[in-house]
Amino acid sequence: MKFEITILGSGGAIPTIHKRSTSQFLNIQDRFFLLDCGEGTQIQLRKYHCKYAKINHIFISHLHGDHYLGLLGLLSTLNLLGRTSPIKLYAPAELKEIIDLHFKISGKSFRFNIELFELNFNEKTLLFEDSVVKVYSFPVDHSVPCCGFLFEEIKKERNIIKKKIEKQQIPFHILRKLKNGEDFTYNDILLKSDEYTTDSPDPRSYAYCADTAYSEKIIPHIKHVDLLYHEATFLEEMKDRAIKTQHSTAKDAATIAMKGEVKKLIIGHFSARYNEVSHFEKEAKTVFSNTIAVSDGDTFNL
Amino acid sequence: MKFEITILGSGGAIPTIHKRSTSQFLNIQDRFFLLDCGEGTQIQLRKYHCKYAKINHIFISHLHGDHYLGLLGLLSTLNLLGRTSPIKLYAPAELKEIIDLHFKISGKSFRFNIELFELNFNEKTLLFEDSVVKVYSFPVDHSVPCCGFLFEEIKKERNIIKKKIEKQQIPFHILRKLKNGEDFTYNDILLKSDEYTTDSPDPRSYAYCADTAYSEKIIPHIKHVDLLYHEATFLEEMKDRAIKTQHSTAKDAATIAMKGEVKKLIIGHFSARYNEVSHFEKEAKTVFSNTIAVSDGDTFNL
Repeated sequence: MKFEITILGSGGAIPTIHKRSTSQFLNIQDRFFLLDCGEGTQIQLRKYHCKYAKINHIFISHLHGDHYLGLLGLLSTLNLLGRTSPIKLYAPAELKEIIDLHFKISGKSFRFNIELFELNFNEKTLLFEDSVVKVYSFPVDHSVPCCGFLFEEIKKERNIIKKKIEKQQIPFHILRKLKNGEDFTYNDILLKSDEYTTDSPDPRSYAYCADTAYSEKIIPHIKHVDLLYHEATFLEEMKDRAIKTQHSTAKDAATIAMKGEVKKLIIGHFSARYNEVSHFEKEAKTVFSNTIAVSDGDTFNL
Repeated sequence: MKFEITILGSGGAIPTIHKRSTSQFLNIQDRFFLLDCGEGTQIQLRKYHCKYAKINHIFISHLHGDHYLGLLGLLSTLNLLGRTSPIKLYAPAELKEIIDLHFKISGKSFRFNIELFELNFNEKTLLFEDSVVKVYSFPVDHSVPCCGFLFEEIKKERNIIKKKIEKQQIPFHILRKLKNGEDFTYNDILLKSDEYTTDSPDPRSYAYCADTAYSEKIIPHIKHVDLLYHEATFLEEMKDRAIKTQHSTAKDAATIAMKGEVKKLIIGHFSARYNEVSHFEKEAKTVFSNTIAVSDGDTFNL
């Protein structure tokens, strides 16, 4: 089952031809999520063959233009393509004002509902949960209220070893107990869960830290994740500018990854002033070796 | 001197990879104008090497998303690139609300002023005039208030025939009169304007009719222009849909061009349901032969 992240935009505040505005498409076991929605996201979704009509949940980290200006266009396209099922938006409350004003002025509304869940910028908050995945927001440190997002797969029950079970004709309710890790006596035989089942794979996790200054407050929220995306707008040579604008350097991102003991780091949101993103990767690797500087269209499978 | 139109987006309400949202870049003797600004316009301007930092006047025909959703991103980029000179926006008044709300919510403002001139949807109106060009708006017929725009070069004074003048040492104030077409007696000699000067080239004109139903009210405003852009969202096979949505078919556009006795017609705003735009050109040519169905990146020189 997939746990796949597609980078739709790796650029910073000024999008360029090769580095578009921030957005990521997630496929977690056929749940489809969109993370941020900078200008042009709907075209990037088409370009990289993402199943955008199946997105039900959109997460907007904050209301700087490069993270939300593609939203109205995407929603409008979904509407024109005939969507009727609701979209859940997890975003700063003010996004509702923007959507409402667009409706008022354009004289149009959509055939589907937009349900906006206001982000909590004070503490880690569970936003969504089903049988497969939990999604949390957590505060990051930017010039306007801004959240990161954490996607945690839910651990599956143990897997039955079929050839062992087939001989014994064990009833379904007992199989359930074995799958849950419980031992059980049946026909005077002790059935040990770990003899009849194998452990399910470790659940996978992904944390997304869009625009943020270097902040160690983030670390507990991203601790031990399989994959961390952390913005890296600047190189260390522009540390002053990073501090002033409440963004991070590649080294900052790597330091958070290292202190958070994550398995792998991807960095993006590169300032348009840099043509060569390999410098970001090189700088980050001095602190955290398992780092990739992303490009538009990159896909990461966990 | 240039009179050049670059097509930044030839698509309709749903942009696609090859047909982006409506926008056109005009260079009229080094005056740079932007017509509409659909999502992704700033990237198209980069892609087609348009001098977008030099745009001083932006014309927004109406407030459907595919004609304005790229504006905030473009303005934001101009600001980040250091612009300080004002931008003049000619648009429906409500666009100001959208810009103000974005500023309020993003916590950002620009270092340059945005001067909004409200469009008049009732009659032809002069929007801008300098020594080179006059720009007018005129009402078209769409589901929300919408204007077309007319760019008319101002006729230049006559050109001096240098070799004739050099012999005579004619003072500057008399040269001015000859260039203005006036005859003048100097040292008892009658200097005839048409002997010492040649006529300047005919001024060129371009009319832009974004989203509109077929409307013969447009004809007086576009009469005899050198180049007419008229939307053609549908083919005649979808005439019902065109009427319902207050858009035009290729044949409608061609009929306006024919009745307006224009020199050349370009059509665009093609619905995403059509993959092949040559059908639009073919249909239009049955009525008006000098028609081109545009593609993104096309450039037309008058």
